[in-house]
Amino acid sequence: MYSISQLQDLINKQIAEKQYPVQPNELYEPISYIMSLGGKRMRPVLLLKACELFDDHILKALDPAVAIELFHNFTLMHDDIMDNAPLRRGKQTVHSKWNENVAILSGDVMLVKAYELMMRVDDGILRQVMQIFNETATGVCEGQQTDMNFESMMDVGVADYIEMIRLKTAVFLGGSLKIGALIGGAGQEDASALYAFGENLGIAFQLQDDILDVYGDPEKFGKLVGGDIIANKKTFLLIKAFELAENIDEEELNYWISAENPEPATKVKAVTEIYNRLGIRQLAEEEMNEFAEKALSALERIDADGDKKNALRVFAEELLVREN
Amino acid sequence: MYSISQLQDLINKQIAEKQYPVQPNELYEPISYIMSLGGKRMRPVLLLKACELFDDHILKALDPAVAIELFHNFTLMHDDIMDNAPLRRGKQTVHSKWNENVAILSGDVMLVKAYELMMRVDDGILRQVMQIFNETATGVCEGQQTDMNFESMMDVGVADYIEMIRLKTAVFLGGSLKIGALIGGAGQEDASALYAFGENLGIAFQLQDDILDVYGDPEKFGKLVGGDIIANKKTFLLIKAFELAENIDEEELNYWISAENPEPATKVKAVTEIYNRLGIRQLAEEEMNEFAEKALSALERIDADGDKKNALRVFAEELLVREN
Repeated sequence: MYSISQLQDLINKQIAEKQYPVQPNELYEPISYIMSLGGKRMRPVLLLKACELFDDHILKALDPAVAIELFHNFTLMHDDIMDNAPLRRGKQTVHSKWNENVAILSGDVMLVKAYELMMRVDDGILRQVMQIFNETATGVCEGQQTDMNFESMMDVGVADYIEMIRLKTAVFLGGSLKIGALIGGAGQEDASALYAFGENLGIAFQLQDDILDVYGDPEKFGKLVGGDIIANKKTFLLIKAFELAENIDEEELNYWISAENPEPATKVKAVTEIYNRLGIRQLAEEEMNEFAEKALSALERIDADGDKKNALRVFAEELLVREN
Repeated sequence: MYSISQLQDLINKQIAEKQYPVQPNELYEPISYIMSLGGKRMRPVLLLKACELFDDHILKALDPAVAIELFHNFTLMHDDIMDNAPLRRGKQTVHSKWNENVAILSGDVMLVKAYELMMRVDDGILRQVMQIFNETATGVCEGQQTDMNFESMMDVGVADYIEMIRLKTAVFLGGSLKIGALIGGAGQEDASALYAFGENLGIAFQLQDDILDVYGDPEKFGKLVGGDIIANKKTFLLIKAFELAENIDEEELNYWISAENPEPATKVKAVTEIYNRLGIRQLAEEEMNEFAEKALSALERIDADGDKKNALRVFAEELLVREN
């Protein structure tokens, strides 16, 4: 059985060795650049781990694993334009380093290259793998648009929010796992159970992200704590706080949400205190745990080697107790 | 045998009937919008015509034909952002009507939907069809980037230019025809000959476009005559003129290319006169005819019904004598 770090090494090596055409430079260099910025490679690791549940020969899943990572980075390249983000993992984003047109077109060709690599599976599963890939890609786009729409909507409920993160993050983890399972030779039932594992894990993971943005250790979290609060981002925490806040808490929350150019640290402190008074952190953790449990119970149902399932369970749990 | 206008009707009906999810609205409405703006549907018509050469039952090629048109409109949606174009076929472009983020993301999902529809072919040809689609999509992106690079390059030669339009326009026509042929059950040799037909036709078509931009009847051409001249666009005509111009012609050409804010009509008239003195129109027509002949001789090689081949030849010739 491969360890997570062995899988990450395999993936990083495959990514580093990938040669793109030299010309046109502006089309292919940004792909190598964004792919070299690193990251946990969570999605391709999950794909390989899912394959390994059913077959020890996981190298045949390596190209599709890189395809998933290419797709993920394509979405980041385009999202960064839409968010006007200057930095990604501490380095310049593609549209800052080159320009917006380069980031649009290089992203487009990256999506095509992801399809190309994803096709490197046996004929017997080609159509199903491509269908899963289409569905997850569609979900990610729908989730991203819904997320952008939420910015200007005042009546986003918890259920809307969960559906948005399901589309934007969770179906993609589910899809990665299901593709890995099919490459490993899993039956439909096991493949679907792995999808459910990934989908619920993805929702739990995103809820954890919301919690860490407010309550994470700034040194370990690696981003500005309270960034979501400063940006009035409609996370589970803010939506739940609006649902529960009454009287002074409600007034104060409204004040901070509509304040023009408030001092960031003061706003973060004030909103966090409202969250604390309403017990939002605990509610978010309960919600997260519920999805985490659903994920783990789906994993239990799978007919595969106990040690391998256990390794996947441990990986999932580590993803959820992460502080970065 | 279907007439061209019957095929256009079939395609337009299929496009009009296509239902996208209602939500998120900003993701799917732009797709229906841009697809409804019309056009000659040249690419899907060619795909269906290629299928018909080998099989009268062309309805099975209708979804892949719409996939090609979706892909084409995806490139237009993203190109319009990159070109800052306010109008497309006399109507607002997607990024003007909505905004840039909508045009980026809606375009992305359009590419995914094109893959989805393109997969609606028999298992026996699925992989090959998808590979052709990947290659042509890659070509279009490479061609678009090369075209953008040409804007700031002074030493673009005729061969570079032909390679650029081959990638940007011609491989896509070739790919559409080859996919249609495979769906119709063509052998590899005939499918490749149809690719060559499309590729050469595409280059001839683009050269004709360059000629029409300067010499077309403004009423029939439907765009501003001389638009390429005003924008210093490196077309075959300008590149050839730079190659041939000497003494006063060269000086004058350099003057107009580097003039700041010249009066547009005066510039168009002056540069056209240089073209006339150098016999550029005739050279461009000779170049175009050479590619057109290559296209038609590839068509001749194909083992298919003479009447059907003739219909395709007539369609190609009409594309090349068009004034709009």
